[in-house]
Amino acid sequence: MRLFKKIMSADKAYVEKMLKLHEANRRKMETVTRVKITDSKILSEFYTPGIAEPCVAISKKKEDVYKYTNKGNIVAVISDGTAVLGLGDIGPEAGLPVMEGKCMLFKTFADIDAIPIMIDSKDPEEFIKTVKLISPGLGGINLEDIAAPKCFEIERRLRKELNIPVMHDDQHGTAIVLVAGLINALKLAGKNFKDIKVIFNGAGAAGTAITKMLLAEGCKNITIADRAGAIYRGRTDNMNSEKEELAKITNPENLKGKLDEIIKGADVFIGVSGPGLLTKDHIKSMAEKPIIFAVANPIPEIMPADAKEAGAFIIATGRSDFPNQVNNCLAFPGVFRGALDVHASDINDEMKMAAANCLANWVKEPTVDCIIPSAFEEGLAFKVGEAVAQAAIKSGVARKS
Amino acid sequence: MRLFKKIMSADKAYVEKMLKLHEANRRKMETVTRVKITDSKILSEFYTPGIAEPCVAISKKKEDVYKYTNKGNIVAVISDGTAVLGLGDIGPEAGLPVMEGKCMLFKTFADIDAIPIMIDSKDPEEFIKTVKLISPGLGGINLEDIAAPKCFEIERRLRKELNIPVMHDDQHGTAIVLVAGLINALKLAGKNFKDIKVIFNGAGAAGTAITKMLLAEGCKNITIADRAGAIYRGRTDNMNSEKEELAKITNPENLKGKLDEIIKGADVFIGVSGPGLLTKDHIKSMAEKPIIFAVANPIPEIMPADAKEAGAFIIATGRSDFPNQVNNCLAFPGVFRGALDVHASDINDEMKMAAANCLANWVKEPTVDCIIPSAFEEGLAFKVGEAVAQAAIKSGVARKS
Repeated sequence: MRLFKKIMSADKAYVEKMLKLHEANRRKMETVTRVKITDSKILSEFYTPGIAEPCVAISKKKEDVYKYTNKGNIVAVISDGTAVLGLGDIGPEAGLPVMEGKCMLFKTFADIDAIPIMIDSKDPEEFIKTVKLISPGLGGINLEDIAAPKCFEIERRLRKELNIPVMHDDQHGTAIVLVAGLINALKLAGKNFKDIKVIFNGAGAAGTAITKMLLAEGCKNITIADRAGAIYRGRTDNMNSEKEELAKITNPENLKGKLDEIIKGADVFIGVSGPGLLTKDHIKSMAEKPIIFAVANPIPEIMPADAKEAGAFIIATGRSDFPNQVNNCLAFPGVFRGALDVHASDINDEMKMAAANCLANWVKEPTVDCIIPSAFEEGLAFKVGEAVAQAAIKSGVARKS
Repeated sequence: MRLFKKIMSADKAYVEKMLKLHEANRRKMETVTRVKITDSKILSEFYTPGIAEPCVAISKKKEDVYKYTNKGNIVAVISDGTAVLGLGDIGPEAGLPVMEGKCMLFKTFADIDAIPIMIDSKDPEEFIKTVKLISPGLGGINLEDIAAPKCFEIERRLRKELNIPVMHDDQHGTAIVLVAGLINALKLAGKNFKDIKVIFNGAGAAGTAITKMLLAEGCKNITIADRAGAIYRGRTDNMNSEKEELAKITNPENLKGKLDEIIKGADVFIGVSGPGLLTKDHIKSMAEKPIIFAVANPIPEIMPADAKEAGAFIIATGRSDFPNQVNNCLAFPGVFRGALDVHASDINDEMKMAAANCLANWVKEPTVDCIIPSAFEEGLAFKVGEAVAQAAIKSGVARKS
């Protein structure tokens, strides 16, 4: 985070340019009426007294709120501003630009009408209660930039206690795109999920989500490391309930030790940690055709040129200026598009796996420099949406087909 | 309310037509990106990493949220669905169509980006807390269709505890337009505020707001009646804290009795009560050139033809199919436009009076059938906005000029 801050403020010309751009475009989104209210006849139909009829209908049958209002196409992008980008806890006002940006992406890629909601409380119970109380008008909830570990509890509770789709994108968005990329990377390397050894650096928001998806793909040998080294059963320092859970389902050999030791012989390295944490020597100690996902932003765990030099077969990062960008924009628009289209009551593992597989299959002929599609490929989010909707129907969480 | 329900369901063809119309147009509003995200360069400026710069700037200086985001043009239309139109407590989902309609009007008349928020709680404390917690991303708050008397406490508290403009439109919107009409009506009748006797039927949401504006205009003789008759100091039945307050500031002669008695000799009748409550005999018992505001919706206290027949000099209703429509659409768009434009911390009495006077003055040559402008007159809301903004500056609640 400190490095990120330093970089961001180092280039004064860039900072100035960005501030001017965002000031000139402070109104990045607007609401628009699709029905034009041009005279008092239209007014009397779309406001009083005509508007009373859908109200009466919904009061008799609550689900008709989807029939007569835009609820089914609205996603709230909700944050408390406690973990914004790499900037940390900067508060709800300072987090607003990111949520507005996210709303733009929902619209751009999946024609979803998203609204940013900033919550002025750091207390998870207050956060949960507030979101529940404003949910009647919302079709779905995208949680964003909420500090770990409370983000886990908040998502878990809201998924359980609400009957509309809820997803914390920092966890699952990254996981979906990363797994999509890994599917294609393994194809190219001639390896498969059940045989590979995966080392996973960084037990933050995305950690558990990625782990669960890898397990669902059949992966048996995953070891997760944080700053203190491998997470293993019986470790006592620097643990929390999320890490305890991870220790139970990973690290079959119960490895201990730092990254230097545990990475030896690994097929895949996944970093959602920090800049420069992976060295050339690390890569040289891995198995044949090492696959590297170095997605720390904006500075990856290792730069692509260095990784290639050390023998990496495939290197993916979070950046748009290198090949193989693990970009959340590939996942959340389509995932919510699909969930909204079938009035899904949840976004479950089946739907996330469907999104990952759809993204992987979208790339007709993967190469080492193209394992993941670009977010700007025409129709991609809608294709992901179809796959997600089908998975929702199959897994029984769709309320409309 | 019962009569309203009966009417609404009596005409089945109308009901069917409205339901089809609202089903076909369920997406009445949409969000639109004003900056088009067409490639990864624009994406990197308007999302990560470029978006970090305004975040950093706002984290250093919170007011800059107005400089770099759309906060300053966003009004949330917030309701708990407890007093929707004449339908009563129909709940948050069933109230959503009205809030969506209101958002359309904010956009149509004043280019304000409004979002509907339905709150799933009938508890005023929970309502207040929820609104406060979601306020960082909002420029203003329009409270709507909340049952009396809790609507008073909710508005009072939110005005006091938030530093963005908050207005309960059911109270003040009606009051502003009604007072605007009365200014012109008195001009035509050759009467003035300080000499007239006003009888006011209905002590609901708008009652206190109208009373306070009339007093501010110099009116000295107002008597308010509810179903139990005149509200007077010392009355014990059917009172609440709002009515106690009203008793203190109105009814100088401390009149007791039903409408039949107290209306004798009155110059102005204002009804915000129910259908058919004013009779021809009532009007005949009033002073010369009686002025009638019968704004119960959709059936007024007396129909215009009957009022005229009984000698009414001027009759105004809430309906678009008769002259002199007291229509909230004339007030709230301009009031919020003005408040937002100067980052007002409140919508105070001075701003409401400025809106009423601006609306009255907009009618260049008032006649008995034209004391109030139409909402569709070009530029009206922006003109009201200018007057409101000036009043905000003068009264010290503007944070930007």
